[in-house]
Amino acid sequence: MIGRLNHVAIAVPDLEAASALYRNALGADVTEPQPEPAHGVTVVFVNLPNTKIEFLEPLGEDSPIRAFLDRNPGGGIHHLCYEVDDIHAARDRLVAAGARVLGSGEPKIGAHGKPVLFLHPKDLLGTLVELEQA
Amino acid sequence: MIGRLNHVAIAVPDLEAASALYRNALGADVTEPQPEPAHGVTVVFVNLPNTKIEFLEPLGEDSPIRAFLDRNPGGGIHHLCYEVDDIHAARDRLVAAGARVLGSGEPKIGAHGKPVLFLHPKDLLGTLVELEQA
Repeated sequence: MIGRLNHVAIAVPDLEAASALYRNALGADVTEPQPEPAHGVTVVFVNLPNTKIEFLEPLGEDSPIRAFLDRNPGGGIHHLCYEVDDIHAARDRLVAAGARVLGSGEPKIGAHGKPVLFLHPKDLLGTLVELEQA
Repeated sequence: MIGRLNHVAIAVPDLEAASALYRNALGADVTEPQPEPAHGVTVVFVNLPNTKIEFLEPLGEDSPIRAFLDRNPGGGIHHLCYEVDDIHAARDRLVAAGARVLGSGEPKIGAHGKPVLFLHPKDLLGTLVELEQA
């Protein structure tokens, strides 16, 4: 059912410092910051040959990653995103297996313009998992 | 410099339960458990089309992931592994940028039989990063 690992998201306190680190010390291909006000984050993509790392910096007062950064001031891995062909079928299979979907339980349009939903980390090995319609 | 994301490692308290969750609820291709006594872990691979997730369960009393699971009893993302062409050159560039290499600072042979080293999470956005010679 799950397909590609679309991205690993790392919440960071300072997007400029994070970009410089990956660009200079790791020699990675790092994009320019992209504000996503509807999602409360500014995003930078690290393009790897097979997947992406996404840096997320809080944007605005109600950023959904603010509490995470309060607990992890130096940053940390925030979530993994797996692609699925049919997000409703994937959701139903997970719910039948006892996993909880965050929020209303219905997919929303995510930062890439595609339907996404998030699963409760306690039900997924302590890992916040995003599913994105491929 | 960094190449593919080789794997995302998730430390889990119960490899059988973790495998069943990914196999049944996420429909993933999950391998049989593989004990790695030299590394203090038993490993399961989740084969995705573009990369791997590795589940790590402690093996033996001195397992290097025991303390992590004590802090995160339900499991959690333990590290990311990036491939590099030349692990010594990568190490030298990171050290020059101020990143600390864990242990002796010299690459060791990792669980895949290739030279690896680990970078201090405080120097890499709160993320434990493994570099593996491709």
